[in-house]
Amino acid sequence: MSILKGAAVIGQSGGPSSVINASAYGAIKTALDSDVITNVYGMCNGIRGLLDDNLIDMAKEDPDELALMKYTPSSALGSCRYKLKDPDEDDTDYKTILEMFKKYDIRYFFYNGGNDSMDTCNKISKFMLKNGYECRCMGIPKTIDNDLAGTDHCPGFASAAKYIATSVMEVYHDSRVYDTGMITIMECMGRHAGWLTASAALANVGGNGPDLIYVPEVDFDLDSFTAKVKEIYARQKKCFVVVSEGIHDKEGTFIAEYANKNMAKDSFGHAQLGGTAAFLANYIKEQTGAKVRGIELSLLQRCAAHCASQTDIDESFASGKAAVDNAIAGVTDKMVGFECTRENGKYTCNIKLFPLTIVANTEKKLPLEWINETGDGINQGFIDYALPLIQGETKLTKENGLPRFVHLKKIKAEPKA
Amino acid sequence: MSILKGAAVIGQSGGPSSVINASAYGAIKTALDSDVITNVYGMCNGIRGLLDDNLIDMAKEDPDELALMKYTPSSALGSCRYKLKDPDEDDTDYKTILEMFKKYDIRYFFYNGGNDSMDTCNKISKFMLKNGYECRCMGIPKTIDNDLAGTDHCPGFASAAKYIATSVMEVYHDSRVYDTGMITIMECMGRHAGWLTASAALANVGGNGPDLIYVPEVDFDLDSFTAKVKEIYARQKKCFVVVSEGIHDKEGTFIAEYANKNMAKDSFGHAQLGGTAAFLANYIKEQTGAKVRGIELSLLQRCAAHCASQTDIDESFASGKAAVDNAIAGVTDKMVGFECTRENGKYTCNIKLFPLTIVANTEKKLPLEWINETGDGINQGFIDYALPLIQGETKLTKENGLPRFVHLKKIKAEPKA
Repeated sequence: MSILKGAAVIGQSGGPSSVINASAYGAIKTALDSDVITNVYGMCNGIRGLLDDNLIDMAKEDPDELALMKYTPSSALGSCRYKLKDPDEDDTDYKTILEMFKKYDIRYFFYNGGNDSMDTCNKISKFMLKNGYECRCMGIPKTIDNDLAGTDHCPGFASAAKYIATSVMEVYHDSRVYDTGMITIMECMGRHAGWLTASAALANVGGNGPDLIYVPEVDFDLDSFTAKVKEIYARQKKCFVVVSEGIHDKEGTFIAEYANKNMAKDSFGHAQLGGTAAFLANYIKEQTGAKVRGIELSLLQRCAAHCASQTDIDESFASGKAAVDNAIAGVTDKMVGFECTRENGKYTCNIKLFPLTIVANTEKKLPLEWINETGDGINQGFIDYALPLIQGETKLTKENGLPRFVHLKKIKAEPKA
Repeated sequence: MSILKGAAVIGQSGGPSSVINASAYGAIKTALDSDVITNVYGMCNGIRGLLDDNLIDMAKEDPDELALMKYTPSSALGSCRYKLKDPDEDDTDYKTILEMFKKYDIRYFFYNGGNDSMDTCNKISKFMLKNGYECRCMGIPKTIDNDLAGTDHCPGFASAAKYIATSVMEVYHDSRVYDTGMITIMECMGRHAGWLTASAALANVGGNGPDLIYVPEVDFDLDSFTAKVKEIYARQKKCFVVVSEGIHDKEGTFIAEYANKNMAKDSFGHAQLGGTAAFLANYIKEQTGAKVRGIELSLLQRCAAHCASQTDIDESFASGKAAVDNAIAGVTDKMVGFECTRENGKYTCNIKLFPLTIVANTEKKLPLEWINETGDGINQGFIDYALPLIQGETKLTKENGLPRFVHLKKIKAEPKA
């Protein structure tokens, strides 16, 4: 193993999660503690910060304050949605990045994000290798969508799942207080994969879960859905449905588009945009005459740090730490992931490294065998998979009865003289 | 003081809250422990349960399971929205209630709810007095709306406030990750009073709060609002607004009605209903071209027991207990409320009894001096008032990483032979 002295840079990219900062903090703290890594820089707003020479010096943060990152939602360094071009077509950005690497003596590159971020990390890694610049590039996963290939699960998913299942249980109770009829339709994120929506099924473990769950892995049929809701409603006067934002019919048209496609304008001339739950709630209201509530969990589900899974927080921290430890040990061009066992109710989780090439730009869907035969519910297989991940309550610090989130000073980095 | 032996009945009414069961449990446990109260009955779905002879025997519940009521949201006994008629016009219901009182030897009537529930409690109390049936009727307050007269605050408000402030802080972080522009408009409950919406200002204590807050106590002007959002957005690329569902213009038209009034139908022929946040988000999107998110906290804010204030839970329990203790001691025709001091940052809360007549059917609004001069923000006066109420984290039992809510057996009550 060759010792590679130099600075490290870390960036965050894509949509935030409750625990992406726990991963970043795992990497930052490990890098700050290392004798090999000379400086630790944070990119402001992901790769854009590197391209624009907008880096901050992580060593200048107060260590106790910095430690609050572990429990702060969203991306503390700032995020971006910037896709690097194919270097064979346009290598301008890559050349800028190489200049920045040289300017700050960066030998360690850590990128914390989802599919697109792994693609960015992969491209930079390959470019540096091709150009003979010695450095180590590691991907640190993050996505509430849980759709990264290879790894058992993704940091961020479990906390969102815990929040969704908890909220489903609470709304279940709320929707059943009156002896009059009530239909509830809740919408979770997930454009292409049903992982988050499936996690509503965890609420059934305690017997407070939904009657119907619809995920994008199965074509959605509005008539069949309506018939099922009517049948359940007639039988028990209540019906609780959870749907993915990305459910679509067999032609591939999103259900959310049904409302928008032929939609008229309101008095101000604006299109009335509505989500999937809003559309379905209106539709079912017309079809049944029942009281119907559409609830969209919206951004809440990806930033509810107060309801995060401590297992998720600890694993996220561990993934950031493993990225740095492995890079120092000579590993490059890999994403840190998890390999887990769940035998006889005992859960184990170990770090495993995956080649960036197999992770980048592929999407892992919810396995079809975890969806029931009628395509409107989730099986025990998913429960056994997900339940261990949501264990443990966050150790988030509270101040004045409210979360105490990190405030970074963000002092601009100076290259070594 | 005369000792009045007999059974007690308790019911819950109106919209639920995170802690209404803590109040009910305070009353039920105290009644079960009493030597004077011979039986403790629960009304299934409020006063409807009493009218329909649908009572459950609380003594038949397992005490450990029953204790979980303290941390279970929504109304465990079931609720109703049933308004008793004026007894001078139609006393049918009152006669039925009197028969039920006699059948079960009920001498203690406890009713747990908001304005309408205090009205019900008041009417029954007066009817029994007029008809010479000795009994004691006590109101136990509950409302997230915090609009009951007399009492310093209402059980349920603080937990909803804590959830709202926490969610605002989390969404604040989420909405600031990108360096691109973003406008967020969040909607809280509150048709006539702005208490819940004002609680978003608590997020400012930690510096993660909204830029603008609009409550129904002030007329809302769409043009002025738009100008302010544009100005803030131009200056800082982000703008976070929190509005009450009940904001209205100076003619009294709800802003939510703007979207619905002249609204066209979609392809299915359904009116596209949207909330206040949805309407404002669409409007601002058109006006600014910015990325805008409308988020409606919907039912979540009134049932988020996982984020309840332990102060609220303890005070709710105490109010239920005080209702029973006082009734046994001879008090009747009163609502239990709170008298509080907040001197030099020290908060004290004592039980105080209020005549049901002054509580019933009046609404306490947010004091105007707690709203800023421009009508778009909340002053320190409100922070000083509300901050002590949201202190303390719920001691909610978790099972499998999720809340463990009560499961009542609900065994039908039998009158004594």
